[in-house]
Amino acid sequence: MRPRPNIAAMSGYTPGEQPQVGKLIKLNTNENPYPASTKVMQAIRATTETALARYPDPHSTAFRHVAGGILGVDSEWILCGNGSDDLLTMLTRTFVGEGETLRMPNPSYTLYRTLAEIQGANVEMIRFNDDWSLPDSFGSSDGDPRLAFLPNPNSPSGTVVPMDGVAEIAERLPCPLVVDEAYGDFSDSNCIPLVSANSKVIVTRSLSKSYSLAGLRFGFAVAQPEVIEQLVKVKDSYNCDAISIAAATAALADQAWLADNRRQILSSRERFSAELSQLGFRVQPSQANFVWCTHPEHSHESIYQQLKSGGILIRYMSYDGWGDGIRITIGTDDQLDACLSELQKIVNA
Amino acid sequence: MRPRPNIAAMSGYTPGEQPQVGKLIKLNTNENPYPASTKVMQAIRATTETALARYPDPHSTAFRHVAGGILGVDSEWILCGNGSDDLLTMLTRTFVGEGETLRMPNPSYTLYRTLAEIQGANVEMIRFNDDWSLPDSFGSSDGDPRLAFLPNPNSPSGTVVPMDGVAEIAERLPCPLVVDEAYGDFSDSNCIPLVSANSKVIVTRSLSKSYSLAGLRFGFAVAQPEVIEQLVKVKDSYNCDAISIAAATAALADQAWLADNRRQILSSRERFSAELSQLGFRVQPSQANFVWCTHPEHSHESIYQQLKSGGILIRYMSYDGWGDGIRITIGTDDQLDACLSELQKIVNA
Repeated sequence: MRPRPNIAAMSGYTPGEQPQVGKLIKLNTNENPYPASTKVMQAIRATTETALARYPDPHSTAFRHVAGGILGVDSEWILCGNGSDDLLTMLTRTFVGEGETLRMPNPSYTLYRTLAEIQGANVEMIRFNDDWSLPDSFGSSDGDPRLAFLPNPNSPSGTVVPMDGVAEIAERLPCPLVVDEAYGDFSDSNCIPLVSANSKVIVTRSLSKSYSLAGLRFGFAVAQPEVIEQLVKVKDSYNCDAISIAAATAALADQAWLADNRRQILSSRERFSAELSQLGFRVQPSQANFVWCTHPEHSHESIYQQLKSGGILIRYMSYDGWGDGIRITIGTDDQLDACLSELQKIVNA
Repeated sequence: MRPRPNIAAMSGYTPGEQPQVGKLIKLNTNENPYPASTKVMQAIRATTETALARYPDPHSTAFRHVAGGILGVDSEWILCGNGSDDLLTMLTRTFVGEGETLRMPNPSYTLYRTLAEIQGANVEMIRFNDDWSLPDSFGSSDGDPRLAFLPNPNSPSGTVVPMDGVAEIAERLPCPLVVDEAYGDFSDSNCIPLVSANSKVIVTRSLSKSYSLAGLRFGFAVAQPEVIEQLVKVKDSYNCDAISIAAATAALADQAWLADNRRQILSSRERFSAELSQLGFRVQPSQANFVWCTHPEHSHESIYQQLKSGGILIRYMSYDGWGDGIRITIGTDDQLDACLSELQKIVNA
């Protein structure tokens, strides 16, 4: 067996822990703590009875029409994926060949690095400034990057590069800029308005977080049709299944559900952030459904371990050249209270 | 925008027509005409109520345990995919780099060629012998192939290379041999017994055809753990969604359903093949859920068009260096009777 040298050498992406059993309070992978819209359940039931034996619509037409209406873009500008990770994969395969360079900020979503490794490509990691703004070098043409990924809001920080800053970066870059808005529905702004102005801007979205559908795998990209046309060549013919298409379409159509859910998450986030500050944490103001924080006196890895022992799962993260910290997903108020109660014991011990 | 030159140059794979509306008799993409097991519907209902907000099990553990038990292999030898196309993609990305060579027979599944094109790899197409056996060159190390795909049963022919022939090819090849058994459940034999004897043999399966779940997207590969370990690095973390995992697990667990369905499809296939012969078609004996046939006196493209005008969709196929013909999926007996009735009018016109 001779796998490609880049594959043999790599270790692969490690997703957050996904325990499939047990009574854990799960605040580690940015899932939404509330169930999806009941319209989603209805759509799944209807599809299950009629549509499983046949191949699904390879173009997810129904979803693209609904999403286009909501976002104010033509459906030709939308491409659907089996989770937004599927779209990140398509983008990398379309633009970055062996030995070429993919640019990403650091600390951010480490999957981008894995996608480059699978291609046999190089990764250029541009360190965020200490205030989570981007240095000018992120928009530079030095090193001939073929694709740049910018998670916005970023994970783990929950911070946002403002739209005019993104526009300027896209203008300067010699390659497409993927604005990964997996957490965009929780933010005060988004970059979809930039897509029509600049064919280099590609926005990706996920239904995992803001629509409570992580288990379903559905995401989409918004880009100019000439970009979509290239990505489609790399897309698996039937990448989205019949149930997911129907469920995702119903989810997007229920914008009232989204608004209610968002209001609840943002309210919990503000309260939780304030309480963490009271416990001595340095809390990064977040525009996502999680908060990133550090504590000046306690080991972050130890906090993670102690919470885990108490049945609460959060994410401990450590980044070369940056340091470590903990990322906590905004759960229900009860879950957050349980977490705060444990944290209080830890920091006062 | 600068897509990779191989992407810009390629046209992409064109799947069979998937009309999403209308009353067509659809015999063009080898779907199963009968609904899936009711156990599948029950599993979907149970999952919809509980599991959508959280990420799915990245390893599809439940499915692998059930499938391992049925196939007599350890679950470590099984890898699940978002349709078997997802596995074909992972295999290509793991083994075939830019400028390297992927080997496939011709005529066969043209997606293999597309997968090579996406990688920027070369395709070596080895023509089947006129009796649909493989020439010795398919097992040769000439040209240093990095991966070979063998659909078995093959599409469009429905023919099978016997297990000992496959074993001999794998022995001689300098690279892994993927035995694509998308239609394996309809065949008299399969190559899973070869996997334990030779780490170069990788078998892929689909639930689209034999389990009536084309709309669900689920497939799996059987290979030695050292092979699976490499493929996992290329797998999207959450490639299979929670509903699909539950539904596929329930489908495989209902082997009585599979046996009944298979018996019906094979019975219809034999009758349909005999009736086609009566109409003057040359019918290739099939071990799949479709038949490939030619007519010495009529245009195959015209037959396809006339059937389509009459509301019956079949597949017309033309292959360089081979010729053309029609491929008809085994539908219900009523659907096949309607097709035969139209064909009778056409050949007697």
